[in-house]
Amino acid sequence: MTTVTIPKVSEFIEVEGTRYAYRKFGKETGIPLLFLIHFRGTMENWDPNMIEPIAKKRPVILFDNKGVGETRGQTPITIAEMAKDAGAFIKALGLEQVDILGFSIGGMVAQELALQHGDLVRRMILAGTSPESGVNPDPEIIERMNKNTTTQEEGLEDFMFFFYSPTDTSRSLGMASLQRIFGQKTVNSSDQVQQSQLQAIAKWAQQKEDHQFEWLQSIDHPVLVTNGVTDIMVPTKNSYILTEKLPNAQLIIYPDSGHGHLFQYPEMFAEHVNLFLNSQTYEASKN
Amino acid sequence: MTTVTIPKVSEFIEVEGTRYAYRKFGKETGIPLLFLIHFRGTMENWDPNMIEPIAKKRPVILFDNKGVGETRGQTPITIAEMAKDAGAFIKALGLEQVDILGFSIGGMVAQELALQHGDLVRRMILAGTSPESGVNPDPEIIERMNKNTTTQEEGLEDFMFFFYSPTDTSRSLGMASLQRIFGQKTVNSSDQVQQSQLQAIAKWAQQKEDHQFEWLQSIDHPVLVTNGVTDIMVPTKNSYILTEKLPNAQLIIYPDSGHGHLFQYPEMFAEHVNLFLNSQTYEASKN
Repeated sequence: MTTVTIPKVSEFIEVEGTRYAYRKFGKETGIPLLFLIHFRGTMENWDPNMIEPIAKKRPVILFDNKGVGETRGQTPITIAEMAKDAGAFIKALGLEQVDILGFSIGGMVAQELALQHGDLVRRMILAGTSPESGVNPDPEIIERMNKNTTTQEEGLEDFMFFFYSPTDTSRSLGMASLQRIFGQKTVNSSDQVQQSQLQAIAKWAQQKEDHQFEWLQSIDHPVLVTNGVTDIMVPTKNSYILTEKLPNAQLIIYPDSGHGHLFQYPEMFAEHVNLFLNSQTYEASKN
Repeated sequence: MTTVTIPKVSEFIEVEGTRYAYRKFGKETGIPLLFLIHFRGTMENWDPNMIEPIAKKRPVILFDNKGVGETRGQTPITIAEMAKDAGAFIKALGLEQVDILGFSIGGMVAQELALQHGDLVRRMILAGTSPESGVNPDPEIIERMNKNTTTQEEGLEDFMFFFYSPTDTSRSLGMASLQRIFGQKTVNSSDQVQQSQLQAIAKWAQQKEDHQFEWLQSIDHPVLVTNGVTDIMVPTKNSYILTEKLPNAQLIIYPDSGHGHLFQYPEMFAEHVNLFLNSQTYEASKN
């Protein structure tokens, strides 16, 4: 089998005054899969054990959206603008259609992108994410999310708390993943990213009255929704809602895991992603 | 790739006065997967397009439990007794451990079997099923379930109504599956089966006060829970409950489908089953 290694150096493309950093690799032919990372993450925050088996089967694009990691500029304060930037980046690469894997805030951006540029997207994986006006975390979780950590130990413990279940198995698999991620990490995001992303998420999470998530009906792409069974940060209930309200969504929930399910089970998750993206079942529909 | 054909003729084994009909085929080595069929079904009610890709990867056993299809005797009126019979059948075959795929009432029997004979079961797939004291269908659905159909057309329309979503895609894929099933059907169940199974299901569905499904904690086997997103007969909510309350359960929900999800997407479902049963992820735990 071909070996795939994630490149350590980025390429750049300039679009509307922003120089986007990205890394494109993997199989040379096929629809590329674009990855949209979680809150405060950069393209170096993906677990390589999850990325590599996916990249063996299709071209993969990791990128830093505006203001994030190696891409300079101001991170916008709405999900819609983040999606607009991602769309401009895809078009600048000369791509007519991509698959999208959006994790957490990245999944929110993916939904907006599908609404703004339906034809640009073939299929989507929405991991550990929420529809607009979804179910919010418990108040004590929100409080802890908004607290600034002062030491590296606190930061690490917060990450483990938010991404993994409080079981020995989940925490030790989570720690192993984190070490793989740390092993490739060279760039962090600017300070402005966190505040802008928090503002964007807060606006996205705002409750609307009398809605039935009717806008999700417009996203008729084949979608794979995933999460861990006990995500405390983006409650798992949101994945049920996405599956029930999107017209063509499959759901996979993983045991003994939370928000970081895709990093806890990187090989199984990658197999599910490849199976979904390759499936002939969706050939009958327009995508 | 090897071709697998479901044998048209049954073998028999006598256990405690009952002569059980079964068909064992597929790959010769490996843990066998035992199939437990839905209400009123026999071992000829499985969609061959779903069975064959699974049988390519492992030994498969279809069987008729007591009173069903080619197995004579009185069908018991509790799920627990059905599980006891299934356990006796497995042991009589000289098997020390099996995987189980239980669909609908078959999934209820599978749960009881795991509680009664934990060591006999390695991993389980629970398709379109419910925990004891789960969420019941809406009253008008229960009314239609209890109504006896008089014509073949009514029977067919009821089957389509209960197993598939009211969309063109779901119904046409469902009808194609039903034709594949009809193509292999030679034996029906006796009249006594329906009344006994209905009694057993009604007792299983009875609400208990103040329970949190705590007995599901005892089923620590790796479990794959599956259903369609809009099962009206065994409401999909039950699959969420099983996933949340069983300690080691993965969930897959299929789009645009209901109770008959496994027949609507036979190839994709078979791939998910093979992936789950082969997964190394569970090797660390006792199973």
